[in-house]
Amino acid sequence: MYLENINGPEDIKKLPVEALQTLADETRSALVGRLSAIGGHVGSNLGVVELTVALHYVFDSPRDKIVWDVSHQSYPHKILTGRKQAYLDPAHYRDVTGFTNPRESVHDLFTIGHTATSIPLAMGLAKARDAFGGTENVVAVIGDGALSGGEAYEGLDCAGEYGGNLIIILNDNEQSVAENHGGLYRGLRRLRESGGACPDNLFRGLGLDYRYLEEGHDVPKLAALFESVRGIDHPIVLHIHTVKGKGLPYAEADREEWHSGSPFNVADGTPKNGYPVYDTTVYDSLTGLLSRDEHAIVLTAGTPRALGFVGEARARWAATGRFVDVGIAEECAMAMASGAAKYGSPAVFGVYAPFLQRTYDQLSHDLCLNDNPAAILVLLPGAYGMKSNTHLGLCDIQMLAHVPNLVYLTPAYREEYRRMFDYATTQRSHPVAIRVPVRFIDCGREDDTDYSIPNRAKVLREGEGAAVIAVGSLVPMALALADAWKQAMGCDLTVINPVFLTGVDGGLLESLKQRHRLVVTLEDGELDGGYGQRIASWYGTSTMKVANFGISKAFHTDFNAEALLAENGISVPKLLDFIEAQLADGKRA
Amino acid sequence: MYLENINGPEDIKKLPVEALQTLADETRSALVGRLSAIGGHVGSNLGVVELTVALHYVFDSPRDKIVWDVSHQSYPHKILTGRKQAYLDPAHYRDVTGFTNPRESVHDLFTIGHTATSIPLAMGLAKARDAFGGTENVVAVIGDGALSGGEAYEGLDCAGEYGGNLIIILNDNEQSVAENHGGLYRGLRRLRESGGACPDNLFRGLGLDYRYLEEGHDVPKLAALFESVRGIDHPIVLHIHTVKGKGLPYAEADREEWHSGSPFNVADGTPKNGYPVYDTTVYDSLTGLLSRDEHAIVLTAGTPRALGFVGEARARWAATGRFVDVGIAEECAMAMASGAAKYGSPAVFGVYAPFLQRTYDQLSHDLCLNDNPAAILVLLPGAYGMKSNTHLGLCDIQMLAHVPNLVYLTPAYREEYRRMFDYATTQRSHPVAIRVPVRFIDCGREDDTDYSIPNRAKVLREGEGAAVIAVGSLVPMALALADAWKQAMGCDLTVINPVFLTGVDGGLLESLKQRHRLVVTLEDGELDGGYGQRIASWYGTSTMKVANFGISKAFHTDFNAEALLAENGISVPKLLDFIEAQLADGKRA
Repeated sequence: MYLENINGPEDIKKLPVEALQTLADETRSALVGRLSAIGGHVGSNLGVVELTVALHYVFDSPRDKIVWDVSHQSYPHKILTGRKQAYLDPAHYRDVTGFTNPRESVHDLFTIGHTATSIPLAMGLAKARDAFGGTENVVAVIGDGALSGGEAYEGLDCAGEYGGNLIIILNDNEQSVAENHGGLYRGLRRLRESGGACPDNLFRGLGLDYRYLEEGHDVPKLAALFESVRGIDHPIVLHIHTVKGKGLPYAEADREEWHSGSPFNVADGTPKNGYPVYDTTVYDSLTGLLSRDEHAIVLTAGTPRALGFVGEARARWAATGRFVDVGIAEECAMAMASGAAKYGSPAVFGVYAPFLQRTYDQLSHDLCLNDNPAAILVLLPGAYGMKSNTHLGLCDIQMLAHVPNLVYLTPAYREEYRRMFDYATTQRSHPVAIRVPVRFIDCGREDDTDYSIPNRAKVLREGEGAAVIAVGSLVPMALALADAWKQAMGCDLTVINPVFLTGVDGGLLESLKQRHRLVVTLEDGELDGGYGQRIASWYGTSTMKVANFGISKAFHTDFNAEALLAENGISVPKLLDFIEAQLADGKRA
Repeated sequence: MYLENINGPEDIKKLPVEALQTLADETRSALVGRLSAIGGHVGSNLGVVELTVALHYVFDSPRDKIVWDVSHQSYPHKILTGRKQAYLDPAHYRDVTGFTNPRESVHDLFTIGHTATSIPLAMGLAKARDAFGGTENVVAVIGDGALSGGEAYEGLDCAGEYGGNLIIILNDNEQSVAENHGGLYRGLRRLRESGGACPDNLFRGLGLDYRYLEEGHDVPKLAALFESVRGIDHPIVLHIHTVKGKGLPYAEADREEWHSGSPFNVADGTPKNGYPVYDTTVYDSLTGLLSRDEHAIVLTAGTPRALGFVGEARARWAATGRFVDVGIAEECAMAMASGAAKYGSPAVFGVYAPFLQRTYDQLSHDLCLNDNPAAILVLLPGAYGMKSNTHLGLCDIQMLAHVPNLVYLTPAYREEYRRMFDYATTQRSHPVAIRVPVRFIDCGREDDTDYSIPNRAKVLREGEGAAVIAVGSLVPMALALADAWKQAMGCDLTVINPVFLTGVDGGLLESLKQRHRLVVTLEDGELDGGYGQRIASWYGTSTMKVANFGISKAFHTDFNAEALLAENGISVPKLLDFIEAQLADGKRA
């Protein structure tokens, strides 16, 4: 076994080139062991095993700088750069994160989880290297899927003018998270089919040098290719054809299913913990709209599964031309939603909260400035959503609540979501965003609210002394708090669902002054610049006390939502104590 | 004169094709009349006169949908679509805005001022047209400069997969705002030089059909080209070579100088109101850094003049490789700043506030998550900055203040800016953004503040009763307010410069409780989600009254800064009355 002696790239270089495939096999085996035990990104990592072995055989990391785009394909890199224990020893599986991480290793330059970032980051390293008079190689490794993002293109274009060393490795496994979308993929296919020789080479069109390698799992050929460009004096794209999921037949056969996932049995790929059951509320709302209104258009930026569109059904909807996957290109999707809404289509763009931030300008300028009535579904927002510092949805309110013309709705229950979705996709007045709950809870009765009345909050329980305004997912906690309060104190707290995050219900806030001395706001996103501070400001010159609760300002990572909320004072017992103390204090004053 | 009878595209279609050049000449003459009288975008509009005449001769707007990228080249379009009076009659010059505007005309589909937006917006129109079974042509007109933006690429890529009618007119005048930067421009040059026939056609590489026209000012040839693609059943790029500034020799000769400007004498191009004098504070700070530290790197995304880099000096700095213009590609510049800072360079990216919003994700994920110590200069922020709804800087605090790891500093005086710049570019702890004042005011004494002490505010005047916390440009107003208060009331107001927008000075806020009953916050950006609401939240459960003043939530346009501020209660007399009333009210309570 070679792997047990590999404590860094220097140990790989000691091996004869003939041994490298064995090292790759051992690396793949370590990968499969951990992936099958605890889950993770499967296909992308299996596809770059040989490429990574060759990369570290030829280049001299950390002196040479390697930037991994998205970095969910960096597991082999981690194994080979001193972190093999986290892949070989179950007791250490949790020692490393799923993304490159400078706190783990000097071989990791950036914490990265968003696509299309590697080339501009590498360009920055390259320009600085030049300023320092350095001679290190700068290498960006980017997948074909990430190439649909505008940031990657901006980086390619910038590199096309640059006159120094930069090696861009295009790891082409013919797949994004789902299937690729965009005309560039026709171009890549032609390049693959012609061995890189076809006319109309996109990269050359951008002023870049280019080479193609078909055998993306042949370590000696990979090493020879890398050796041939080591120390190159200008930017070059190395287009390498790999197989996503390489080595696991079921993963090679269904590349989308095996992009990432849960623990599985290696023999046949069956899940260890059973097949997950997906909530179809969002999917049902979207397909209901598409079925009901032949003019409706639904957009996704490379994450059709996030909206529930998979397999045959997805293909059928895509064939209508009204379910559109634009690739990992959020800016394009947001602008298209504006254009389609302008024409007259009910248009919906569904996007994960962490990726919504990739299209802030298009939301503001292309959509809201034009006040076109598109609907935006913000998926996995807040603390209950994604939980890696690379993928956070804690700042959706910061991004959206201040944008003029936008209506941002926050349903607490499934019935509210459905009603809001219908409102958003039938009204023609404004762009409407919906903060889709991470887990849908049934309220048990149909919602017949008229959401065209702006900023009207819902009073869920009428009480006195203190009122709790809880954003979306925290409504159930607020009601539980009120129950506990009633039990302890014998009286009711007022509980309010604000419904609208883009404005406050001034009439209701005014009326609270009569029987309340304290307003508590709860939100599962960042406190600073969030919803609650608007309430504090509204009451600023009155005698009403306002206490805002939300998440502290940090790139939180690998957290438990309930624990993070509790750390920030958001739990029933903590809030009970807080409110009791505040009201007692108020009586003394 | 033909133009006087042109009240819409239908009137152009009545003309014989031989008359079109005359109409173009008359249109250019009207353009020059208004441009020379009141200023505006010169070069881009003069360059598309013939193209616009031919476009409206062939296509049937508003049935056919024409989207103008950036839309600062839409003046001829306005002249020919019913708005000629605004170009011919000085009394009506102000009837129209400088950008397409659906409120002005059904021929304008979007309010647009940001680059690279037209293709995705047009794709949205096209998909909706298909859903409605329409047969209209959808046309996007985009300049070569805008093509460096990632959103344009995402749109091209999406169009490359699309199977319906979409006509992308690439108006190639070989110029961005400044000179073009990026490898794609080598590709465009090869296409121009080969009459569109060279290999490695970027557009074909993205799966798009393509045609080239060299004679971009020959109306019959333009009309024939457009006629040949009218009703086309797939996307096509029409690459048309034009001359920026066409018709004014001095504008043709210096395309950057004549991108946009003030009133001028038509005979020789000399300015009517004298040459503007530019403040060199920012330029001096940047060139000082570049001179002092050979590792330093300064980045701009297509707006080198914003940083004071022009002419020979710019060329000299660019030649060092350490002043880098990446083209209109803010995402690339932000990520590069992170990469360069990671390597060890003092790295500065200077960007107009309205365009900073194009790179929110890179600011958060590529830079701040990685906590790399790059410096970001936010230019023209707030109400004193740009004043078109297409170019607003009213939400920089909303975007930046909540981002973890970031330090956002707001200098009130030139001396503070200089000290903060030195701090930002020598520290190695965090990304630091500076809210650069629109107009620099001298404080009159050197600043020796230690900005490494986080969140420490400055007390500029100590008083009692009320404290005023004024953000950046409003510090002088706060001091004038205190002077007026002293004169009227005989006592001092406390005046505070918060300095840090990414945190509050808790110790100072606590100490204010002793002798103050009211805190007033003033900011020249949007109130909702702004700085002041953080102060209101901080004091939420205390008895301190807090009044937040900022700009109302709207896409304000064509405003006077002082008037807009006053409308929102921010003027010395209004604030005097407000504070007096609040303190009196407090005494009664």
